[in-house]
Amino acid sequence: MTEKEIQEQVTKFQDQSTWLSLGEGLLKIIAIIVIANILIRLGKVAIHNMFKIRNISPLSTSVRRGETLSKLLDNIISYVVYFIAFMMILSVLGIDVKALIAGAGVVGLAVGFGAQSLVKDVISGFFIIFEDQFSVGDQIRVGLLEGTVETIGLRTTKIKSGTGEVHILPNGSITQVTNFSLNNTVATIDIAISYGEDIDKAENVIGEALQNMTLKYEELTKTPELLGIQTIDPAEIVFRIVVETLPMKQSGVTRGIRKDIKLLLDENGIKAPDPRLYMYKSGS
Amino acid sequence: MTEKEIQEQVTKFQDQSTWLSLGEGLLKIIAIIVIANILIRLGKVAIHNMFKIRNISPLSTSVRRGETLSKLLDNIISYVVYFIAFMMILSVLGIDVKALIAGAGVVGLAVGFGAQSLVKDVISGFFIIFEDQFSVGDQIRVGLLEGTVETIGLRTTKIKSGTGEVHILPNGSITQVTNFSLNNTVATIDIAISYGEDIDKAENVIGEALQNMTLKYEELTKTPELLGIQTIDPAEIVFRIVVETLPMKQSGVTRGIRKDIKLLLDENGIKAPDPRLYMYKSGS
Amino acid sequence: MTEKEIQEQVTKFQDQSTWLSLGEGLLKIIAIIVIANILIRLGKVAIHNMFKIRNISPLSTSVRRGETLSKLLDNIISYVVYFIAFMMILSVLGIDVKALIAGAGVVGLAVGFGAQSLVKDVISGFFIIFEDQFSVGDQIRVGLLEGTVETIGLRTTKIKSGTGEVHILPNGSITQVTNFSLNNTVATIDIAISYGEDIDKAENVIGEALQNMTLKYEELTKTPELLGIQTIDPAEIVFRIVVETLPMKQSGVTRGIRKDIKLLLDENGIKAPDPRLYMYKSGS
Amino acid sequence: MTEKEIQEQVTKFQDQSTWLSLGEGLLKIIAIIVIANILIRLGKVAIHNMFKIRNISPLSTSVRRGETLSKLLDNIISYVVYFIAFMMILSVLGIDVKALIAGAGVVGLAVGFGAQSLVKDVISGFFIIFEDQFSVGDQIRVGLLEGTVETIGLRTTKIKSGTGEVHILPNGSITQVTNFSLNNTVATIDIAISYGEDIDKAENVIGEALQNMTLKYEELTKTPELLGIQTIDPAEIVFRIVVETLPMKQSGVTRGIRKDIKLLLDENGIKAPDPRLYMYKSGS
Amino acid sequence: MTEKEIQEQVTKFQDQSTWLSLGEGLLKIIAIIVIANILIRLGKVAIHNMFKIRNISPLSTSVRRGETLSKLLDNIISYVVYFIAFMMILSVLGIDVKALIAGAGVVGLAVGFGAQSLVKDVISGFFIIFEDQFSVGDQIRVGLLEGTVETIGLRTTKIKSGTGEVHILPNGSITQVTNFSLNNTVATIDIAISYGEDIDKAENVIGEALQNMTLKYEELTKTPELLGIQTIDPAEIVFRIVVETLPMKQSGVTRGIRKDIKLLLDENGIKAPDPRLYMYKSGS
Amino acid sequence: MTEKEIQEQVTKFQDQSTWLSLGEGLLKIIAIIVIANILIRLGKVAIHNMFKIRNISPLSTSVRRGETLSKLLDNIISYVVYFIAFMMILSVLGIDVKALIAGAGVVGLAVGFGAQSLVKDVISGFFIIFEDQFSVGDQIRVGLLEGTVETIGLRTTKIKSGTGEVHILPNGSITQVTNFSLNNTVATIDIAISYGEDIDKAENVIGEALQNMTLKYEELTKTPELLGIQTIDPAEIVFRIVVETLPMKQSGVTRGIRKDIKLLLDENGIKAPDPRLYMYKSGS
Amino acid sequence: MTEKEIQEQVTKFQDQSTWLSLGEGLLKIIAIIVIANILIRLGKVAIHNMFKIRNISPLSTSVRRGETLSKLLDNIISYVVYFIAFMMILSVLGIDVKALIAGAGVVGLAVGFGAQSLVKDVISGFFIIFEDQFSVGDQIRVGLLEGTVETIGLRTTKIKSGTGEVHILPNGSITQVTNFSLNNTVATIDIAISYGEDIDKAENVIGEALQNMTLKYEELTKTPELLGIQTIDPAEIVFRIVVETLPMKQSGVTRGIRKDIKLLLDENGIKAPDPRLYMYKSGS
Repeated sequence: MTEKEIQEQVTKFQDQSTWLSLGEGLLKIIAIIVIANILIRLGKVAIHNMFKIRNISPLSTSVRRGETLSKLLDNIISYVVYFIAFMMILSVLGIDVKALIAGAGVVGLAVGFGAQSLVKDVISGFFIIFEDQFSVGDQIRVGLLEGTVETIGLRTTKIKSGTGEVHILPNGSITQVTNFSLNNTVATIDIAISYGEDIDKAENVIGEALQNMTLKYEELTKTPELLGIQTIDPAEIVFRIVVETLPMKQSGVTRGIRKDIKLLLDENGIKAPDPRLYMYKSGS
Repeated sequence: MTEKEIQEQVTKFQDQSTWLSLGEGLLKIIAIIVIANILIRLGKVAIHNMFKIRNISPLSTSVRRGETLSKLLDNIISYVVYFIAFMMILSVLGIDVKALIAGAGVVGLAVGFGAQSLVKDVISGFFIIFEDQFSVGDQIRVGLLEGTVETIGLRTTKIKSGTGEVHILPNGSITQVTNFSLNNTVATIDIAISYGEDIDKAENVIGEALQNMTLKYEELTKTPELLGIQTIDPAEIVFRIVVETLPMKQSGVTRGIRKDIKLLLDENGIKAPDPRLYMYKSGS
Repeated sequence: MTEKEIQEQVTKFQDQSTWLSLGEGLLKIIAIIVIANILIRLGKVAIHNMFKIRNISPLSTSVRRGETLSKLLDNIISYVVYFIAFMMILSVLGIDVKALIAGAGVVGLAVGFGAQSLVKDVISGFFIIFEDQFSVGDQIRVGLLEGTVETIGLRTTKIKSGTGEVHILPNGSITQVTNFSLNNTVATIDIAISYGEDIDKAENVIGEALQNMTLKYEELTKTPELLGIQTIDPAEIVFRIVVETLPMKQSGVTRGIRKDIKLLLDENGIKAPDPRLYMYKSGS
Repeated sequence: MTEKEIQEQVTKFQDQSTWLSLGEGLLKIIAIIVIANILIRLGKVAIHNMFKIRNISPLSTSVRRGETLSKLLDNIISYVVYFIAFMMILSVLGIDVKALIAGAGVVGLAVGFGAQSLVKDVISGFFIIFEDQFSVGDQIRVGLLEGTVETIGLRTTKIKSGTGEVHILPNGSITQVTNFSLNNTVATIDIAISYGEDIDKAENVIGEALQNMTLKYEELTKTPELLGIQTIDPAEIVFRIVVETLPMKQSGVTRGIRKDIKLLLDENGIKAPDPRLYMYKSGS
Repeated sequence: MTEKEIQEQVTKFQDQSTWLSLGEGLLKIIAIIVIANILIRLGKVAIHNMFKIRNISPLSTSVRRGETLSKLLDNIISYVVYFIAFMMILSVLGIDVKALIAGAGVVGLAVGFGAQSLVKDVISGFFIIFEDQFSVGDQIRVGLLEGTVETIGLRTTKIKSGTGEVHILPNGSITQVTNFSLNNTVATIDIAISYGEDIDKAENVIGEALQNMTLKYEELTKTPELLGIQTIDPAEIVFRIVVETLPMKQSGVTRGIRKDIKLLLDENGIKAPDPRLYMYKSGS
Repeated sequence: MTEKEIQEQVTKFQDQSTWLSLGEGLLKIIAIIVIANILIRLGKVAIHNMFKIRNISPLSTSVRRGETLSKLLDNIISYVVYFIAFMMILSVLGIDVKALIAGAGVVGLAVGFGAQSLVKDVISGFFIIFEDQFSVGDQIRVGLLEGTVETIGLRTTKIKSGTGEVHILPNGSITQVTNFSLNNTVATIDIAISYGEDIDKAENVIGEALQNMTLKYEELTKTPELLGIQTIDPAEIVFRIVVETLPMKQSGVTRGIRKDIKLLLDENGIKAPDPRLYMYKSGS
Repeated sequence: MTEKEIQEQVTKFQDQSTWLSLGEGLLKIIAIIVIANILIRLGKVAIHNMFKIRNISPLSTSVRRGETLSKLLDNIISYVVYFIAFMMILSVLGIDVKALIAGAGVVGLAVGFGAQSLVKDVISGFFIIFEDQFSVGDQIRVGLLEGTVETIGLRTTKIKSGTGEVHILPNGSITQVTNFSLNNTVATIDIAISYGEDIDKAENVIGEALQNMTLKYEELTKTPELLGIQTIDPAEIVFRIVVETLPMKQSGVTRGIRKDIKLLLDENGIKAPDPRLYMYKSGS
């Protein structure tokens, strides 16, 4: 910057018209933001109304997909409107976006590589919705994170865990998903008794008890089954029971059955396992 | 956006013909979606009929492959029809897809890199089917996930685990697969006895019992074999038995045999292992 | 460098005008740094005033987002002003930046690749703010690091952990975030009693005690619930209680309830678990 | 899609010649598939005959390689014939493959990157065969997977594990291979005795016993060697024996020797290790 | 190399002028190295003087940043001077650097990729300084390495650990940094008492003791707080105390408080935890 | 493929000259394979003769390198001859390799990326030989695999483990190598005695014994040294001895010394460690 | 290859001049290798002489760097001479290297990517020397490998571990280095006493003993300090002592001090820790 340029800057600074055009630009930007916000609100109202009357045949979807799509469209509208608003603001500020994007070279290379995960997120998000991998309200697990899906957005998915925290995942990081809400859940209950007890008696006691469980626990989708002896070791014999419940309802049921059988074994005098140690006195 | 442009926008907004063409566009889009849905339904019916009459010689496939291919074709039809419908909608909205795709530069670079895993998924999926790595109904393991294959799609495979959850995997992430349904399963049962017991007697008792197992358990494909002593340690001597069963039927059989031998050893007075501790009283 | 060039260098070195222009350049650079610092201070004052009067409707934001944006704008102003100042200094030093950036070849390749993580950081930071993944003051976890968000910058986010250290993370490394401050926290308390105790009595004692907890602990958002028996093993029976508290307030509450129930069980004569060992004397 | 285009489509739909050419196309496709299947069957017969008469000098290979190559050629023929058939079907459908492949741009970039692992698999497979890293029937380990090689294909290798499941690995993922079938296997047997026993006596007893083992176990390729004391700790003294057997025959031999030596030590009155605990009674 | 060329080489070898120009080149190279070393020494002196008089307002920095910048400038001067010297030596040796760098092709590709981590290191180093992530003298942790910052260079940062070794890290590998020196440190002390002791009495004894700790330990920034019961198990009840100290001064303070409370509990007759084992004599 | 083309194919099929040229091609291919095999055999003989007379001064190498280079040249000759033969066969089949390789586009991209690990293997292999990182017969460790080097090829290295299996590693995966055969091996022996024993007496006994070890074990390269007490804990005091042996001969030596010292300590009445437990009887 | 070409080959083969030029080429290659070996030996002698007289001021370096640079120059000379010799041999064989390198396309892509780690190694090696990260003779740790630096080459660094094996690392894999030889080493010694002992007495006994340690152990750089109680648990109270020694001399010193204090505590009647177990007899 030569001295002359500085003087020009100063002159420009003192020039009234510069200030005017600056103010005008600022007003335009504010107007764009205001209009964008209004458009988004209108769009969201429109979407919610549309989903209320969406029972016309070929467009109709299940309730489950409806909520997912409704939240997704909210999300898309925000992105699209803000993206257009952002482009308009840049144009008010006199920045030529097209030239920037078309420009190859060092900057283009860096931006292209840096943005590739953004593109991957959007592509992945599209396929999650399109293939109906999971919907809002489903219980899913991605890697080590588990919870209920809150929203599926274009770029990120939000999952609320059972303990209240919200996991926010870019869609591109959702590769291997486990969906718990599509089928009934099968769980196992292990019952341990002392090594010395009568195996057949214990099997009869447990087996009979399981016959009536479907009456007691309505989340059970069929009668629990006693598979037999799972492991034998010096301290205990372990029986395995298998139960099938409505999706993700297994923890309450297994908790109840575990208590019921514990009381039953006590009643029948079948002892709990006892860790053993045989003591050999050396030289005595 | 200059003021003039805004005025043009406003004029356009008030212009009736703009609204008309907007309405027309909306109708076209709805029509495309409706027709796409109808075509997919027709296609699926056609596929299922075709697979019923597929017994003409050179096209005939095994039952196992038939189900896989039938589900795959359903999947492909959805993709193809929706892809064409999507392109048509974009063209109604006036977006020129070809120009977008041909356009190199920053955006092209980012999209090309971002989409590479999509391409890899489709290629991998093609080879899974073509090489018959696994079919619908097979029990497989991919990484840490294990279950029964539900569908093999162009881009993703769905596996249902034994406890009810559905794992959804992009085909590109299925590199090393383990298929449990192609061969009989070989399993081992370890029987532990106390260190002090007579080894030869125990071997005889167990060995004789195994001779009749094939009659009792029909999933057994040959007589179980007693390999001998697997490990010896201060608390126990462990015998290993090896059994061969129909694919994935081993857990019921081993559970039964484990119980049978436990009762037999009790009958013959061969004691279970006893964790030992030799106590030395210091100074006494 | 030939001898002649060295002589030219020496001549240049002795030449007064060279020294003058060197001094002039130095002065210009100092002036640029001084002005940049002043501009940043002015900008920060302007931002803080703007956020005080930001209650005009469409621009209004929640308090939580306000603080985040205010800190972000501070950060952006520093970057932009220093970036312009840096470019001006390079131009004073006679280095042509545009030519450097446009220059492809080996250097361009290396710089383009090397800078891609910088671009990724800025894009990720933009989406963290835009999608409101977390705000200043939220408790979050990223990978193994956990703490309260201090500032979200264009390129890095600072998190202050509970033990006082500050984690500084480039935004590009923040992919899967867990936000603890959006919902109430659900925590569990496990209460263990001796295996031999009366289960129903213990359930009654604990159940009643939980009814009045909401009065005692105001962070509780609803009455704690006794789920039932979680596990049974030879030494103990474990009951699980579930409590819901205001976000991240669970540790004080569970600490208190754990003490209350311990005292209550003592009062009611319900014994704590006792690790058991059954001793078999061999040969005696 | 303008209205006019739709009409054209409809007209085309009603036009008989369109249907005719559609039927003709379908017939061609079926013919291609039928011929491809026939060619593959012929090819496989030819290969098996060729390998029967392959004893002409410079082409002759070992039996082990013969089976590998025979299975590989089956595999290659399927790929080549189906690849040509696929290209012909695409050409019947009017899709110009060459133009697709030559087309650079976004799609080309994505396909090129997505297909790179396919190319890597074929290159790796070629070198596995060419360098004779392993052959059909060898026992190998790749990463965590171990088993007997079933087939080596152009793109994937199938390994059957000892428990019956089949591991399918893309050749590109086979980098570090361990081949168990090329050399005799060396295994170790650890024999533990009580700390207080006479070391030299035990060494003599074990040493003499090992002299006659080669007569008893024919899989032994030389006399087992007693290396000496491996570890000493308060509970036990551990001797290490080293045995060399035919490839992968070690488990039966070590199991037998372990039992033989256990009986021998019992005969000679050398005691098994006894976990010790010195009890100090405090204050008594 | 033809014979003629060899002869030319030989002629050249015998020619005196070749030797002269070789000697001249060697002298030039030595001169460049000598001058470079002198310039670096002068530059370092200048920097240290500049930082002594740097109290002129807009350039002034905190003491902490001053030392960081001073060491950084030393580092930059070495790089710049040696880089120029290296270029001059190459030019003396007749190697045209510009042509090398501009040359694309195989070599350019390899160099461009190989140098990308160098570029990344410099960019990362720049942002560490610019964003003041940490300064010379701060205690930081990067990955598994922890220590006090010795110098921050353009390409590498040196950290001295508490046990004396120096970790040298390229700046590009410093992504997630934890800085311990920015805030007071909060530490916890866990005090365990026997299960049978009086909880309230113990709480009173500990609580009172903590009131006077700020007098005894001047690194404490506020009165330590007794949070309550952290865990209860059959052997012990654990109380948690939380203390806030000056940055990284926690280890001496917690060591002292731990001893004080141990003595206090002994005085008050509150027993230490006692690992329990309930012995059931079987059959007696 | 139009009908006309099919007819042409059929005509061609019936045409005698087509069959003739097919037969001629087949003969050429067989001739190429035969000649290639002969050339490789001749080459290998030449190499082995050359290495026998390689004692002419400037080409002479150590015996160790000689064997490595001889095996490498065998390997290179196979590659080069087969590569040329392969190119000639392709040319007989009418495939233009040069056009294939020069062809950029999608296929070129995929092949270029897919082949990069092949190139990396060859470069790495070259440097392993050139820098003499290890030779045939050396004991090395790469990652988790350890064994004796069998052959170093252009692309892969074969290592034979102590238990007989052969590890085959692509050279590109050999980055960090550990070579055990270059220096003497230093090993440590830990001797534990009971806590109550006299430390100085034990040190004397062990120290004296070590003086004569070099006579007994000829693999020892210097007198073993008693370093002193390594750890003290309630059950034992552990002394550490350090021994230096010929490369990889440490296991036999340490096994022997461990036995010698055990017998010596028994002779001198120094007791082995005794795990202690102090029993406190509660309430008695 | 047509028949005519084969005939030409055969003619060429029989032609005497072909054999002559072949012999001439072979002689040239041998001459190149001989001269290269002589040049390398001369170069190494020159380097060693140069480093002996290198005490002229601005080129002088510390002894430590001298050895590093001397070994590095040996290494560089080998590379440069062999590289030139290799190029000359290729030119004798009629292979045009420049054309190969300039050739883009599939091969160029593969080579460029495959060679990038080679380039990275050389750049990293340059910076290790230039920034003096470590020198020959320093004790360093890189990842899991630790030892004394033997040589730093252009491409690889050799480290000799304490147990005698040599780790060979490509410089590009040396990112985070830990250098143990730059500063004194600080080590800790933990002394455990029984829970019941008098803390203050023990502190006095240990504290006094430490005062005289600097006389006894000359590797100590200052008086060891007793920090206080590190941990308290039911079995023991642990004191921590901190010692500062010359670089890497800590193991001998701590071994000695540990023994001294053990004897001292025995003398003063302070008991070692005693693992406690409180036995509760149930029902007796």
